[in-house]
Order: sequence, then structure tokens, then C-alpha cells
Amino acid sequence: MLTPEHMQQIVDRYLAAINAGDMPAVMALYAEDALVEDPVGTEPKRGDAILQFYTNAFSGGAKAELTGPVRISAKAAAFPFRAEINGAASQVTIVDVIDIFEFNPDGKIARMTAHFGPANITVRNA
Amino acid sequence: MLTPEHMQQIVDRYLAAINAGDMPAVMALYAEDALVEDPVGTEPKRGDAILQFYTNAFSGGAKAELTGPVRISAKAAAFPFRAEINGAASQVTIVDVIDIFEFNPDGKIARMTAHFGPANITVRNA
Repeated sequence: MLTPEHMQQIVDRYLAAINAGDMPAVMALYAEDALVEDPVGTEPKRGDAILQFYTNAFSGGAKAELTGPVRISAKAAAFPFRAEINGAASQVTIVDVIDIFEFNPDGKIARMTAHFGPANITVRNA
Repeated sequence: MLTPEHMQQIVDRYLAAINAGDMPAVMALYAEDALVEDPVGTEPKRGDAILQFYTNAFSGGAKAELTGPVRISAKAAAFPFRAEINGAASQVTIVDVIDIFEFNPDGKIARMTAHFGPANITVRNA
């Protein structure tokens, strides 16, 4: 059964997996037929393209932290977070994001949608 | 044309209208055929039901404030805010919400989705 506690845990495990650079742990939270729309408005990715997306995005390491409470409704969780992503040339990209997780009845993420744009991105030297 | 600046302005005007208790000003931001799903997972409202919904929700007055930056993508804005809603018997209901505005090409809100649940609500005496 899909409970608020379960949805909160999935968000916590998602951010912990990103912080640990553990992409298989990220993938384990997704349903097999999951869709990832990141950022919102782009063509949703599925299957291996999701793993490749995470691997590319976080290959240099990242810190991701909640910046407010997880909003948990009947079948979805929405949460604000800040990601600091290590890139090439000692640069760190800081992105303020809101992710939406829509869950299937088994408690896996069926669809993820990430809200951010150029105004939410800053780059600094590490 | 739908610009990030316009979307930011609509969010600012939306919160200002709620703080002012000006429900016609809220409605002016919506497209005629807009859908409001508040909270997410409930049947979307349209037309007069939207005005009635806002009128009921905020009849006793409310304060609404951003609690983080507005995330602005190509056609949508997502923002975290806290609403303090005056209710009966001197009680104030405090709700942490994430709203998503999806815009039409004219810059009106075509769909609003509000993310929150019981875990995001507290009640205190005024």
C-alpha cells in the first residue's frame, strides 16, 4: 500500500543515492516502465536512457539537499531541493529544482518530472 | 510570447491577489478553459467552480509567501509557498504547498496543480 511514510522514504533514499553517487540505487526506486521528464517540457526518457541520464549528470559527484518539506498527496510527492553538481574545470553548477514523483500502487516511481530553468542555475568555481 | 519574466510575474501577482483577498484578480490570471487540480489527485475544477473554490478557501483572509525560488522551465512555473489561512473559531491553518502553473501561449495559466497533504498541514490558535 502506498503510504505517506513510504513516499517520504523514497524521496530520502533518492537524495541519499545521488549524494552517494549510487546510480543503481536511484534506478531501484523506479518502476520498470517509468518515465523521466527532466527538465519538464523535454521528451520523457525511459529504460536505459534513464540510467544513462543519471550517470552523465552526476558522473563528477553531486550534493543534493532538501530546501523545504516534501509535499505528499495521495499518489505523489513534490519536493524542493538544491543540487550542487561537480563539473569539468573545477566548476560547480548549483541548481534549484522541484521534483515531482508520481507513484504506482507498488510504491515505485512511475513518473518523475523536474522543474527548473536557466534562472535557477548558477555556476561557481570550486 | 511566454517569457520567464512573465511567468515569474504571474506567480507574484497570484500570491499578491491571495494576500489581498482579491479573487477576481486571481481569476484574471487563468485561461477561460483552465483546470485547477487542488490538491493533486482530486477531480480538476473549471470555470465558476474555480472562483467558488478560491472564494471558499480564502473567505477569512490568508497570507501566502514564497519559501524558495520559483522554478521556471519552458512553459511552466513551480513554486514552494506557505499559506496561513484564517478559519473559524480563531484558528489559523498553515499549509506548505508546491503549486505548478502550466501556461498557454498567451501567458495565461492553463492548468494549476497543488501538491500537499495531511503531513503538510498544521492548525494553531490565532
